[in-house]
Amino acid sequence: MEQEINGGVTAAMGFKAAGVHGGIKMNKKDVCIILSETPASAAGVFTTNKVVAAPVTIDKEQLAKNGKISTIVCNSGIANACTGDQGIKDGWETIKIMSKELNVGENEVLIFSTGVIGKNLFMDRLAKGISIAAKNLSKENHTAAAEAIMTTDTFSKEYALKIKIGNNDITIGGMAKGSGMIKPNMATMLGFITTDAAISNKLLQETLSAVADKSFNRISVDNDTSTNDSLVVLANGMSRVPELVKGSEDYNLFASALEKVCRTLAKMIVKDGEGATKLIEVNVKGVSTAEFALKAARTIADSYLVKTAIHGADANWGRIISAVGYSGIDYVPEKVTLKLSGLQIMEAGYKVVFKEKEAKEILMKNEVKIEVDLHDGEYEETVWTSDLSKEYITINASYRS
Amino acid sequence: MEQEINGGVTAAMGFKAAGVHGGIKMNKKDVCIILSETPASAAGVFTTNKVVAAPVTIDKEQLAKNGKISTIVCNSGIANACTGDQGIKDGWETIKIMSKELNVGENEVLIFSTGVIGKNLFMDRLAKGISIAAKNLSKENHTAAAEAIMTTDTFSKEYALKIKIGNNDITIGGMAKGSGMIKPNMATMLGFITTDAAISNKLLQETLSAVADKSFNRISVDNDTSTNDSLVVLANGMSRVPELVKGSEDYNLFASALEKVCRTLAKMIVKDGEGATKLIEVNVKGVSTAEFALKAARTIADSYLVKTAIHGADANWGRIISAVGYSGIDYVPEKVTLKLSGLQIMEAGYKVVFKEKEAKEILMKNEVKIEVDLHDGEYEETVWTSDLSKEYITINASYRS
Repeated sequence: MEQEINGGVTAAMGFKAAGVHGGIKMNKKDVCIILSETPASAAGVFTTNKVVAAPVTIDKEQLAKNGKISTIVCNSGIANACTGDQGIKDGWETIKIMSKELNVGENEVLIFSTGVIGKNLFMDRLAKGISIAAKNLSKENHTAAAEAIMTTDTFSKEYALKIKIGNNDITIGGMAKGSGMIKPNMATMLGFITTDAAISNKLLQETLSAVADKSFNRISVDNDTSTNDSLVVLANGMSRVPELVKGSEDYNLFASALEKVCRTLAKMIVKDGEGATKLIEVNVKGVSTAEFALKAARTIADSYLVKTAIHGADANWGRIISAVGYSGIDYVPEKVTLKLSGLQIMEAGYKVVFKEKEAKEILMKNEVKIEVDLHDGEYEETVWTSDLSKEYITINASYRS
Repeated sequence: MEQEINGGVTAAMGFKAAGVHGGIKMNKKDVCIILSETPASAAGVFTTNKVVAAPVTIDKEQLAKNGKISTIVCNSGIANACTGDQGIKDGWETIKIMSKELNVGENEVLIFSTGVIGKNLFMDRLAKGISIAAKNLSKENHTAAAEAIMTTDTFSKEYALKIKIGNNDITIGGMAKGSGMIKPNMATMLGFITTDAAISNKLLQETLSAVADKSFNRISVDNDTSTNDSLVVLANGMSRVPELVKGSEDYNLFASALEKVCRTLAKMIVKDGEGATKLIEVNVKGVSTAEFALKAARTIADSYLVKTAIHGADANWGRIISAVGYSGIDYVPEKVTLKLSGLQIMEAGYKVVFKEKEAKEILMKNEVKIEVDLHDGEYEETVWTSDLSKEYITINASYRS
């Protein structure tokens, strides 16, 4: 029933976008607008960092008004983070400019920034970008929009799904940026999702929070959490599908599709991790509680030693088993078994059963799956991460200078 | 009153050591013995990893008997971890061999291993090494002993202090190994401390636990915790200083000297961190609770982005400030100030006040101090870490193969 389609953030009915060069960056696109013809229900999840960029503070305030949102405006190049009162002033000014330019209510606008920390926005260049972008809004410009939010990303990230509900379709599309979990000077993860489903603000927020927890919150590149991380979804109701009600079959289809869109975009971010050469999926099953499963999976995914071993295509099972050991969960170490991309590596009692050559072949691939079974319960969790390469050091040792 | 002296683990009265080649490794020394003429009070702290090497299990049992310990025997090359029942059998066999060789009680022997995980000990080569080492025990062989426990360490680690108590001296000396917080195949951190102080098992254990928390537990290279991590202290009472009593001035002098010995050895481990080029001291002060101070300091020290920035001599204050932000503590971000090695970088309200050139000069040095002041309370904590270099990736991507 699910069908992958093109169109990214404008795939759903009634959405247009633009991505243009306003002059904040030297040559690249740096301003994007996403517009819904009809003001949409909106929900957002934001960074948990105590150091919060001005746009995050302002968007939380906008969403708390519980009205409809029609417009997303985002600049790249400057994060408007650690900018104090001036940053907040510039944020509200951006909303004013945007509102006038498109003749939409000020309460209908959300703003986002990503880029260097500690610098104030160039308001004249941003205004110029907004003015150009407003004239370029179209169904076709979704990729330009996705490009305009990139910082050190090496590719733009878009995805869309169509699902059939009764005789009608609901489309969910989105775009994202991010190539480390944080670069405090190019503050990181942004995700913009649009859909023509009809759904209340409240249920949309509840759904997004749950979905984010299973997608964007399950990835890590380097464990940092940025000052600007934001994920928002706009639902304008322009499909002919009746308003989604919690617990209904239609709602469940929608929630599951939203999760797939978010997870696909999240995995693209991991693939584009700084210096990453491999996508690593970590699955821990047979665990006595869901909390323990997630804790074990995250500890494996966050281990420098596991990430460098996979980078070197080394079936270093000891590092994986040891990471589970210090993850702080309750289990019986002697019962643990391990597979790498389907190949049995270790059986219970630390019995090593693989051939180095076979393991090497599997680990040379672009995607590697680590499967740990604790044989200790019913719960299972999956997270995604990237390998750790010399390129990561090169990018981050010299990034700011 | 404190005086640094030579002699490492044999600096205190009544201790001898040896470090020899038994054949577990190809060419290098791989067996070490430390012997106290008089059986000594003993205490130990061990890895918190659930995956625990056989020697750790056995030593905990030996120490629980609450008797005296005369002999430490340690091999490098094979960790005897993830070796199941055979590993435990080999461990007790090692104790038997050691006991016969030196004619000491089996209850007086502690055993340690460091090296590759998942392989069984070569008992014949270990027995040969023990036999050679037993014949080489001397006051002079402390450095040979320190060398025999090295794995990927690039230098041996020894330190000793003499303190005056009344008309007599107490000496505390030690040696350590470790160059990552873990390499599950060369299982990591070992510390052996000897002293001629007289002190009960119980008070020694209490003191060591507190001291470890302020020294070895305050360092991180890559956040991993090994299967074999062990720190033990033997106190044989051969100084003429009366038994130390908790709370006395003499006891406080002893505890403070023990902490200095442990902290000095711990910092040597960080300096020898895999691929490390710099020792980074992270100090967070003005914090509302000690727990928050430690949490913030650890989060900064564990950030890949901070560690790579310092590696690149980049005064990337945003990464440090952001790490405090996501450390999960309560504070007021706008009040935070930051110094790097004494140079004021940021004042309250994210006001950046440094010259890039001055910061660069400071960050090019071998030791860098990160000083964060939250201006939010009385508490302060310090941890040590190393920078993260391409060399770390090189070592760990190909280590096992």
